[in-house]
Amino acid sequence: MRVLGIDPGLRHLGWGIIDAEGSRLRHVANGICESGTGALAGRLLSLHSQLTDVLSRWQPEIAAVEQTFVNRDGAGTLKLGQARGIALLVPAQFGLEVGEYAPNSVKKTVVGVGHADKRQIDHMVKMQLPGVEIVGPDAADALAIAICHAHHLGAQRMRVKA
Amino acid sequence: MRVLGIDPGLRHLGWGIIDAEGSRLRHVANGICESGTGALAGRLLSLHSQLTDVLSRWQPEIAAVEQTFVNRDGAGTLKLGQARGIALLVPAQFGLEVGEYAPNSVKKTVVGVGHADKRQIDHMVKMQLPGVEIVGPDAADALAIAICHAHHLGAQRMRVKA
Repeated sequence: MRVLGIDPGLRHLGWGIIDAEGSRLRHVANGICESGTGALAGRLLSLHSQLTDVLSRWQPEIAAVEQTFVNRDGAGTLKLGQARGIALLVPAQFGLEVGEYAPNSVKKTVVGVGHADKRQIDHMVKMQLPGVEIVGPDAADALAIAICHAHHLGAQRMRVKA
Repeated sequence: MRVLGIDPGLRHLGWGIIDAEGSRLRHVANGICESGTGALAGRLLSLHSQLTDVLSRWQPEIAAVEQTFVNRDGAGTLKLGQARGIALLVPAQFGLEVGEYAPNSVKKTVVGVGHADKRQIDHMVKMQLPGVEIVGPDAADALAIAICHAHHLGAQRMRVKA
């Protein structure tokens, strides 16, 4: 089963794709979509187009998007929300169900604790996907989300089998 | 010149289309896209699909979207941001430039004061678009945004001519 993870952001939108067979995970690809600095509508269009290319090329079967951290910076939340709208839309346009995970839930699954820092996530992603070369922190987060989604779906199946 | 105005919202996304020739305005169409109550990605997909139909059918040449009111309710701001991402994306996918106006700026242009209520907006939209039948308050706001955009573009042209 091919899993896409997305770490949404307006400037940098991280994505990561893994193959999961039972508890075996294999890295497929990862990257970062950049939206540049022009008008907002054009930046969202650019993210949409890049993410559409990713799905066309790698054909994931399921997807998960990180739940955005809502903070007191309303303008920042709004920007992130707009990028997140695109991150949810594109997989849905390909007919994929889209899971959502809070950052702490992703960390807890991948690192074992809810308050891991970037280096720990990077380390554990590399442990679980031997040989992976990660484009940057946003792509590492996206791979962590894909790993988290694969684990949760695997756990669901085991419960069904039991 | 055919102008599309959009009042973005996750549950109800209002749209309105007018034709503007100089200072003459004519109503073309208005409506509300509803996203239902399912999973978030599916709701955004539904908004995208409905709004794409509107642009395909009515072929506006320029567009404007209301700037979202950022408040202290982070979760609400995030929802609106996601819908707003779709509202900005679709016109950009049709190659349209997308203007953005703050609610107070729309009200000031259409009603004359920045703190007009819904009834005043409805009244002034009907005055400026004789014979219009408005589907609901979100569509009235969207028509007001289209009127505002037409006025601003008209004013720009006059400055260029002078």
